[in-house]
Amino acid sequence: MADNLVRDLAAALAEIPLIDPHSHIDPLRPVARSLDDILGYHYYTELAHAAGMSQAPLAKEVSPRERVRAIIGHMDRYDNTAQYGWFLDIARTFLGFTGKRVTTAAADNLFDTAERIFNQKDWEKQVVEKTKLEKIFLTNEFDDPLEGFDTTRYVPCLRTDTLVFHLDRPDTRERIDQATGIKIVDAGSLRKAIAAVFMHFTRKGAKACAISLPPDFEPAHYDDEYIYEQIRFHDCRDIGPGVLWMIAEFCREFKLPFDLMIGVNRRVYINGVNQGQDLFDQRTSLIQYRRLFNAFPEVTFPVSVLTSGQNQELVAYSWLFPNVVPNGHWWYSNVPPYIRKDLGERLAAVPKTKLIGYYSDAYKLEFVLPKYAMYRRVLAGVLADDFVRPGTLSETEAVALGTRLLRDNVKDVFKV
Amino acid sequence: MADNLVRDLAAALAEIPLIDPHSHIDPLRPVARSLDDILGYHYYTELAHAAGMSQAPLAKEVSPRERVRAIIGHMDRYDNTAQYGWFLDIARTFLGFTGKRVTTAAADNLFDTAERIFNQKDWEKQVVEKTKLEKIFLTNEFDDPLEGFDTTRYVPCLRTDTLVFHLDRPDTRERIDQATGIKIVDAGSLRKAIAAVFMHFTRKGAKACAISLPPDFEPAHYDDEYIYEQIRFHDCRDIGPGVLWMIAEFCREFKLPFDLMIGVNRRVYINGVNQGQDLFDQRTSLIQYRRLFNAFPEVTFPVSVLTSGQNQELVAYSWLFPNVVPNGHWWYSNVPPYIRKDLGERLAAVPKTKLIGYYSDAYKLEFVLPKYAMYRRVLAGVLADDFVRPGTLSETEAVALGTRLLRDNVKDVFKV
Amino acid sequence: MADNLVRDLAAALAEIPLIDPHSHIDPLRPVARSLDDILGYHYYTELAHAAGMSQAPLAKEVSPRERVRAIIGHMDRYDNTAQYGWFLDIARTFLGFTGKRVTTAAADNLFDTAERIFNQKDWEKQVVEKTKLEKIFLTNEFDDPLEGFDTTRYVPCLRTDTLVFHLDRPDTRERIDQATGIKIVDAGSLRKAIAAVFMHFTRKGAKACAISLPPDFEPAHYDDEYIYEQIRFHDCRDIGPGVLWMIAEFCREFKLPFDLMIGVNRRVYINGVNQGQDLFDQRTSLIQYRRLFNAFPEVTFPVSVLTSGQNQELVAYSWLFPNVVPNGHWWYSNVPPYIRKDLGERLAAVPKTKLIGYYSDAYKLEFVLPKYAMYRRVLAGVLADDFVRPGTLSETEAVALGTRLLRDNVKDVFKV
Repeated sequence: MADNLVRDLAAALAEIPLIDPHSHIDPLRPVARSLDDILGYHYYTELAHAAGMSQAPLAKEVSPRERVRAIIGHMDRYDNTAQYGWFLDIARTFLGFTGKRVTTAAADNLFDTAERIFNQKDWEKQVVEKTKLEKIFLTNEFDDPLEGFDTTRYVPCLRTDTLVFHLDRPDTRERIDQATGIKIVDAGSLRKAIAAVFMHFTRKGAKACAISLPPDFEPAHYDDEYIYEQIRFHDCRDIGPGVLWMIAEFCREFKLPFDLMIGVNRRVYINGVNQGQDLFDQRTSLIQYRRLFNAFPEVTFPVSVLTSGQNQELVAYSWLFPNVVPNGHWWYSNVPPYIRKDLGERLAAVPKTKLIGYYSDAYKLEFVLPKYAMYRRVLAGVLADDFVRPGTLSETEAVALGTRLLRDNVKDVFKV
Repeated sequence: MADNLVRDLAAALAEIPLIDPHSHIDPLRPVARSLDDILGYHYYTELAHAAGMSQAPLAKEVSPRERVRAIIGHMDRYDNTAQYGWFLDIARTFLGFTGKRVTTAAADNLFDTAERIFNQKDWEKQVVEKTKLEKIFLTNEFDDPLEGFDTTRYVPCLRTDTLVFHLDRPDTRERIDQATGIKIVDAGSLRKAIAAVFMHFTRKGAKACAISLPPDFEPAHYDDEYIYEQIRFHDCRDIGPGVLWMIAEFCREFKLPFDLMIGVNRRVYINGVNQGQDLFDQRTSLIQYRRLFNAFPEVTFPVSVLTSGQNQELVAYSWLFPNVVPNGHWWYSNVPPYIRKDLGERLAAVPKTKLIGYYSDAYKLEFVLPKYAMYRRVLAGVLADDFVRPGTLSETEAVALGTRLLRDNVKDVFKV
Repeated sequence: MADNLVRDLAAALAEIPLIDPHSHIDPLRPVARSLDDILGYHYYTELAHAAGMSQAPLAKEVSPRERVRAIIGHMDRYDNTAQYGWFLDIARTFLGFTGKRVTTAAADNLFDTAERIFNQKDWEKQVVEKTKLEKIFLTNEFDDPLEGFDTTRYVPCLRTDTLVFHLDRPDTRERIDQATGIKIVDAGSLRKAIAAVFMHFTRKGAKACAISLPPDFEPAHYDDEYIYEQIRFHDCRDIGPGVLWMIAEFCREFKLPFDLMIGVNRRVYINGVNQGQDLFDQRTSLIQYRRLFNAFPEVTFPVSVLTSGQNQELVAYSWLFPNVVPNGHWWYSNVPPYIRKDLGERLAAVPKTKLIGYYSDAYKLEFVLPKYAMYRRVLAGVLADDFVRPGTLSETEAVALGTRLLRDNVKDVFKV
């Protein structure tokens, strides 16, 4: 019962083939094999748990069917949420579900249907086609061989969290040694190892580098002497800000955009479900990145902020810095009220050529469709309210603006 | 002229009997005895003062009629506010006022009408019935005898601010001694005293424990030795974080929810009117409560935040932590623009069974009706825009969702 | 296609003669002489640059026509923004532009038209009349002679940034000496110099004092001894908070409101275009001003906040402190989504007599019209949605409320 204008705009936007610039898809297992792969997504386990489900059904030894029953069994406690809406959309679009809402009674039937449908040979192809998915970016560890998949569809992206935050762990340095043949003993060898990683990734068609960062992080240029001391005498205790800086140097050299995902504190809820433990401190600022943004004018930084409260900084920094680009709606801000607010603000004050509208952040391809559908509904609403109704744009022009956010800018920024 | 759907939803929601989970009602004097009791509410004295009224009319020796004249006399400076709207609603609903707005000319007439109406024998009963008020929570000092009233209607709630923040005052320890017969000399006696208070309160039917906290507060477990030293040698200077922790231990033992009202700085405007001196620093975070939330999974923490900027943290922490529950719209956030925003965000991402919709925070029963009416109008708008119009819920389902926020969850969380 | 009610309200508000309480107009050159004066405004140079324009066209030696071509040539990258909307409004209202959007092809024609129109003898008069501009405040350096213009139209306002932040520069003290004949050697001479400046300004009809402040600033009373030491032995290193306090003393004595514009960090993007280098840190609080607000009850502080995240503090502080007054929508918050949010919040909880609706911040008179037009459209929307449609105000009353924000309060607060 949304109005006609919004519905028409959303319908037009739904025709655009997607290039999804950030996901956690495993290209060797891109689609779900059972409903457990869908409902095991942390958005469901954490909501069910937060609403009262014990963690017992999440144990390895519990059968997938039982786990699905438990998670669906708690849905009547969180069926108001946007996250539930994604699941309903999946059930309807992919599983032929026709009910009004998903109840415990439907669990077994849905589970069985999913078994049947997900195990069709061409399931991946079906999902890709229904989703109109042209390309999707991955998030790869530095030692990922990047083998066995089509890198033009599944675009490699170098995730650098481990390099920046866990160089103090012997196993990280061991993995680097294994992947590159380089032992890290000083700034020089560190630089060589990172160079080797970038070489490997760009040869395999990587189109971006990415990292997620805590609220208090501030990148910094560390001199080689200091890095050497940290490596040799201090177990790499304070090295992250300098490693990030070095990675930015290689982004410049290898011409890769560097996705910054700013604001997450890891393991805040220490007994939370898997991947449902991370929260944040709203007190953070892009001012912490001023040196980085100033020092690397040649590197494009697509920036995601975890909270809507940071959005005005992102708008303002993007309005001044040519190399700062707002990127999608991340995690806790990826629900309609925050998307509506943040998107409206960005469209009012940031050049349209700099707005990367959305990414799915999905672990399984089935989630790309419902998440993008949610985004397009919000986008259609913003275009209608802020551009078409005030007479600023025609419907056709509004669709073109939406296309720019959904697709054109992704192509331009990431050069795909 | 609000649309029909919103009006219908609001009308349906107005039928729900209320259980108001937080107020400052004095159960021995629950209703106003004169218009001065209504307009003496700090929301009016502070707005009138902020708009230019001197504090002279607020002096004790000024007659109630004169004071009411002064406060009403300044209403044409703040009749745009939501707070004025509550008063207009009171005047219309309880005093038969039929004018379009309250002007100085109406002051004496309203004052006299109030004298007559408020002094009817069954006035309390009338207010309760018109308000459809089933139960209302109080806020009781630890040494309140909790005698002389019906504790099933006026539900006791232990306010712990004094214990946590003013144990350094000799009169607090004196009051504890008087109430419990226990002299606080170390952690053990402190624990015994708090146990005695909890025993007293739960025997009298208390259903919650509550506290308001400054923006920089961080609860902490203090060991007994440290507490002993603070008590004996440092005038209890640094003891609050540890006392709060101890109180949480008793909430666990006595199975009481612990209301946290986070973010207020006391006495910022030092020459402000009575109760009109407290403000805040937006820079605060629920991260300060991570240890508390982790350590007490058995305790439910209904959390109120003072600013709308903290709402996304509250949404996210409630989405992960089973024991964190969003609670109402507090003080500076208790006006429609903030309620609209915060409520929409909560409904989009927090399990519906965890949302305690509203509380009145009232000092006199007459305020419960207009405040809840304001909330229901906003709630009806959110349900209409975010659930009914997009086709997610039918009107009947939307009213059920509203009922959950207004009543069901209060019953479940506080076990009333 | 905005609805009729909003259009009617906006039309009624457009009739109100403007008193613009903050601008950077040069009264000796108040209007543009070429299109370069319009598009040289930092809002265009920074958006064009952020969208990919090099800074080459901004060099002095580039001809105005070439520069205009370059900036317009990039407009198709930022024609979604509110800032572009101002230019389109200028082109239509003042230059007879009839196209749907401004494209590169139109650049030369617009440039030539502007040459012709802007150089009419009575151009200033035409702009003033079309804008219905009665008075406009300036922002004058302390040593501005304030000569050669009509100070009843161009109202002087003492900008104190240099005094507070750059007293450590010899040239500042030299300029003070030249303007006042006083050498600053201690607190006494500093006080005398400031007094002389206030005397000069008030004699010339100044109606306000103003300053812009970084996010971490906290005004403080410094004793004379400390000020002396800073001046004599520490190059005025830590003197700003004390100088601001002294200026507040003179605002009290000379009965001038003191505009505080809170939250800007200067030179964050160090290679940004002229005036396009300043950003902010959202982590700031009005709590830093509690001492100032408490100490100077006789001084009115019209407060502008740089970010929408600070708006709730501004609302709350204005709701308690009689001397704190919300002032317009500044810089990064001067686009419709933030104005809508901040204005709605202010109107819901701050006495209407305290709300200074808007100021243009313009450098050339041509910008007053489109900026106020944008504000009036938002204001009309808020009045319609929050007051007229819910039945709280009639259309006539809503226009009166709007008039108060646009004009009446400016007259009352600044006594013009």
